Amino acid sequence: MGKYINNSKDNGLLIVISGPSGAGKGTVCKSLLEESNNLKLSISVTTRKPRIGEKEGINYYFIDHKKFNKMLNDGDLLEYAKVYDNYYGTPKEKVLKELSLGNDVILEIDIQGALKVKSKFPDGVFIFIMPPSMEELKNRITNRGTETENELSKRFKASYEEINYISKYNYVVINDKIHEAVKKVKSIIIAEKCRVDRINSKLEDIKGGK
Amino acid sequence: MGKYINNSKDNGLLIVISGPSGAGKGTVCKSLLEESNNLKLSISVTTRKPRIGEKEGINYYFIDHKKFNKMLNDGDLLEYAKVYDNYYGTPKEKVLKELSLGNDVILEIDIQGALKVKSKFPDGVFIFIMPPSMEELKNRITNRGTETENELSKRFKASYEEINYISKYNYVVINDKIHEAVKKVKSIIIAEKCRVDRINSKLEDIKGGK
Repeated sequence: MGKYINNSKDNGLLIVISGPSGAGKGTVCKSLLEESNNLKLSISVTTRKPRIGEKEGINYYFIDHKKFNKMLNDGDLLEYAKVYDNYYGTPKEKVLKELSLGNDVILEIDIQGALKVKSKFPDGVFIFIMPPSMEELKNRITNRGTETENELSKRFKASYEEINYISKYNYVVINDKIHEAVKKVKSIIIAEKCRVDRINSKLEDIKGGK
Repeated sequence: MGKYINNSKDNGLLIVISGPSGAGKGTVCKSLLEESNNLKLSISVTTRKPRIGEKEGINYYFIDHKKFNKMLNDGDLLEYAKVYDNYYGTPKEKVLKELSLGNDVILEIDIQGALKVKSKFPDGVFIFIMPPSMEELKNRITNRGTETENELSKRFKASYEEINYISKYNYVVINDKIHEAVKKVKSIIIAEKCRVDRINSKLEDIKGGK
């Protein structure tokens, strides 16, 4: 598949949020969506079982392996990744539609998915959410209490390794206080819309009005 | 003179604000300084006469040509520029000191000066303040009422030409509503501090705390 280059001045921003499990990506995204207009969350599909409290169409679309494979084969996924024996994917059509309507779209995806999206959307905004320390990360993962000992250990090891990919991202937000982390992500979105290379077509309008 | 590369994680950001005369740079900087901590304005020296209301040491240090030439020859200026037959310059020592103390420093300077600073501080943040339209710019310059007809005409022509240098900057902020423009500049400062290439040393601390 080719690259999607955002040439229109009215297109929204594609914002990719990832980071180690336990860093608080989900909480950051939830607050962002509550506080922002024109910001849409892309809901992923997954083959994993819902955790307690997770809802169909809110957290994920929970689908079986057969449906997942069909979407994959039909080219309906922007990216997909295998994480701890389960598959996750981002449905393509909705993302492209929202961007073309001028809405910003958030993808909350893991590092594998983020790298795939980056290869297709080089002008996306890639934000890595970090825990304030690895010790705090360990506490957060352990306190979630929704996984077995074996899953926890795998998850912590993976988290530690993911941090090595940070240089592939544009921004790092350290999630010490959630309010501060959300403010930083909102600032990044505002700042990105002022970047010279995104704003060129608007400048022509201004000069034209001489 | 060599480049000043900001290697220390505790150093402040150098923020360069320029844009055409009449775009509202001064108002934006004033509001920023009122609302922000750890933000210092660099006061330029100039050989031009004070405008009505301008104060020594607040708007500029007003000096004569002899003093200006001495500072220039002694290497005490970070940059200098000639604008409409007058000289402007940025005293070097204070800027470097504030940055090393961890304070962010704002330079409100013209395009010539900004390009010189960029060659020495490639990791500075270069922000161009734009009027919402060239017509509005003309109104703003005319309504200021502090210049002769000839000066106004020179100023407007220079403003129009300056816009061609916009690609040398990192960000453009369109100053339609002052409150929105200030919010954008504040967001840019917050976002820049989250950029991966500025934050690497902090990440080592976090990983070290495994």
